[in-house]
Amino acid sequence: MHKPEGHTARLFDDRCLTLDSGAQLSPVSVGYELYGTLNETRSNAVLICHALTGDQYVASTHPITGKPGWWERLIGPGKLIDTNKYFVICSNVLGGCLGTTGPWQENPATGTPWGLDFPVITIRDMVRVQAELLDHLGVGELFMVVGGSMGGMQVLEWLTTYPERLHSSIVLASAARHTAQNIAFHEVGRQAVMADPNWHSGAYYDKDSKPDKGLSVARMTAHITYLSEDALTKKFGRNLQAREAVSFGFDADFQVESYLRHQGSAFVDRFDANSYLYITRAMDYLDIARRYDGRLADAFKAAAHVRCCVISFSSDWLYPTSENKSIAHAMNAAGVRVSFAEIESPHGHDAFLLDEPEMDQMLAGFVSAAALSRGLVS
Amino acid sequence: MHKPEGHTARLFDDRCLTLDSGAQLSPVSVGYELYGTLNETRSNAVLICHALTGDQYVASTHPITGKPGWWERLIGPGKLIDTNKYFVICSNVLGGCLGTTGPWQENPATGTPWGLDFPVITIRDMVRVQAELLDHLGVGELFMVVGGSMGGMQVLEWLTTYPERLHSSIVLASAARHTAQNIAFHEVGRQAVMADPNWHSGAYYDKDSKPDKGLSVARMTAHITYLSEDALTKKFGRNLQAREAVSFGFDADFQVESYLRHQGSAFVDRFDANSYLYITRAMDYLDIARRYDGRLADAFKAAAHVRCCVISFSSDWLYPTSENKSIAHAMNAAGVRVSFAEIESPHGHDAFLLDEPEMDQMLAGFVSAAALSRGLVS
Repeated sequence: MHKPEGHTARLFDDRCLTLDSGAQLSPVSVGYELYGTLNETRSNAVLICHALTGDQYVASTHPITGKPGWWERLIGPGKLIDTNKYFVICSNVLGGCLGTTGPWQENPATGTPWGLDFPVITIRDMVRVQAELLDHLGVGELFMVVGGSMGGMQVLEWLTTYPERLHSSIVLASAARHTAQNIAFHEVGRQAVMADPNWHSGAYYDKDSKPDKGLSVARMTAHITYLSEDALTKKFGRNLQAREAVSFGFDADFQVESYLRHQGSAFVDRFDANSYLYITRAMDYLDIARRYDGRLADAFKAAAHVRCCVISFSSDWLYPTSENKSIAHAMNAAGVRVSFAEIESPHGHDAFLLDEPEMDQMLAGFVSAAALSRGLVS
Repeated sequence: MHKPEGHTARLFDDRCLTLDSGAQLSPVSVGYELYGTLNETRSNAVLICHALTGDQYVASTHPITGKPGWWERLIGPGKLIDTNKYFVICSNVLGGCLGTTGPWQENPATGTPWGLDFPVITIRDMVRVQAELLDHLGVGELFMVVGGSMGGMQVLEWLTTYPERLHSSIVLASAARHTAQNIAFHEVGRQAVMADPNWHSGAYYDKDSKPDKGLSVARMTAHITYLSEDALTKKFGRNLQAREAVSFGFDADFQVESYLRHQGSAFVDRFDANSYLYITRAMDYLDIARRYDGRLADAFKAAAHVRCCVISFSSDWLYPTSENKSIAHAMNAAGVRVSFAEIESPHGHDAFLLDEPEMDQMLAGFVSAAALSRGLVS
């Protein structure tokens, strides 16, 4: 799982990365993918931030699953983010399991995998590593930083931490803090992993079995939150799975059961259970306003020059419109030029990954206007 | 766990109970509690149907937890259902684990606990056992049958199966079928139990350890669905648990985590994991309209003489107002005299168990009118 086929950079080799927890990491490796070419003025770089279970393979084939990139619909030659024009960077987040330093990696102090000795990280720590990667790649300013869900949280931390390096940003279906319900669902997932005896308190890397069952249950739970009730009803309803009548047993009688079981079992092939614990924890810890005495607007004061686009989806109950709107309000209050829209969609949280023509239209307009203002259009 | 202190009846001793699956059970024991006295005309009996993790201790101390009955607020001398006037019966459902036949009980054919050899049951099967218990108690007609959540599902099956034995009925926060999302949450819970190696495919009764971890995760997941997002936010928000700052670890930093962990661990002391599988399965199988070619109204045609009261709660996203309203519409279409109300409440699905003055008021009015029409008021 931990040998990506793409690029890997070794960062923080001669100095330490100081994390929000106070812990220090050195070195930090980062798995990343590049698309397009950096122009002469180094003004066309776009950073894509991935979601909880996403990865750097945003527009190229996934090395484990063989599936197309998770946002190939929007990123590539001639597409919304046109790789003939833009230099697109996407890196695996800190704590991830596709080439970037995380609990699966060898702890230099012991020579064995970190496991639970890996320090707990935050979304801002992920962003610090991305900033260092940009330095490594010779990219000073980003034309744009883009992300949905946890990717959007990273975009928000870019705005609070490195606003001077940004020209524009897009936040999709995201939040500036985790609510009690968000934390609750993540906690259930973590408890499912930790309940699996194959987890061995995180020290399972040299074992024959991994905590696949626990991680699968965690994924199934989370997956329910990614879809709207309507989407589940339209997609599955009470349809039976390859049978005429219920079996009066515990097989997957219903299509929705079969679907969830598949989501769970497919996930464990491409994801590390400890990475899941660390990344969900980073999301739960997110509460940007808290660092500004509860005033989210203050977080964006230094970003008044950055053009922002915030989009929510009407049926998203994980990070609902109210959360996204409060981000847009705070940006507005900070003098940031922000466009906000709630897209009518039945697809729930996952809508940002799907074919949503209204979203595409809004994004296309935002990207062209941003390009024009940056002098990237001939 | 399986030795209740209350009454136990042995039913279906000389003949079999035929289940919806076609399987036959004999005998069937039923754990139950009684409050008040049956009057001379045998016209004052009220059956209370409990929810998924409820039990017969509706108005008396729970033998395991020592806690007051789960509806003592509403049932007792001088209360909404006044045990000075009414003869109240509450029995543990078929498949349950507090005295009623279920997977924990000895299979007469083998002399060992049923485990997964226990037949899969339905809500209607639970109701069949309740009807037999009434016969055993000498109760022909019920003045009223009452239930919330899965209890309401039983009330609906009473209306379809034994309408001639009913004078009135109350359905709270319930549904006439399980949706894809309802099934999805239950399936995650079942997979959590089955992922626990202590489950042993259901044959854990003679083992030292039970599948407590899996059952606890199942309970935690379900518990999130019982509360509204607002209720979680108001109750816990991002409050920390007995600490000034996050610990940068995987302890229960947040109150909501601590609360959920407690819900999980307290549950396993009073509930059987296999019972949880069987009862959730029964709920998932519920789809009353399907037996009537999709016309729910037809299910209630023979119940036109029964007075019904259906109540939903505005913040209940498990069995939302739309589901309860469709029940009321169907009853109405069948000529049943039905009162329906959506109660404004922030408490989510659990509202029916809580202090909801508007609900109390509506129920009080309904109970008095029903008593009057039954000639039970002097």
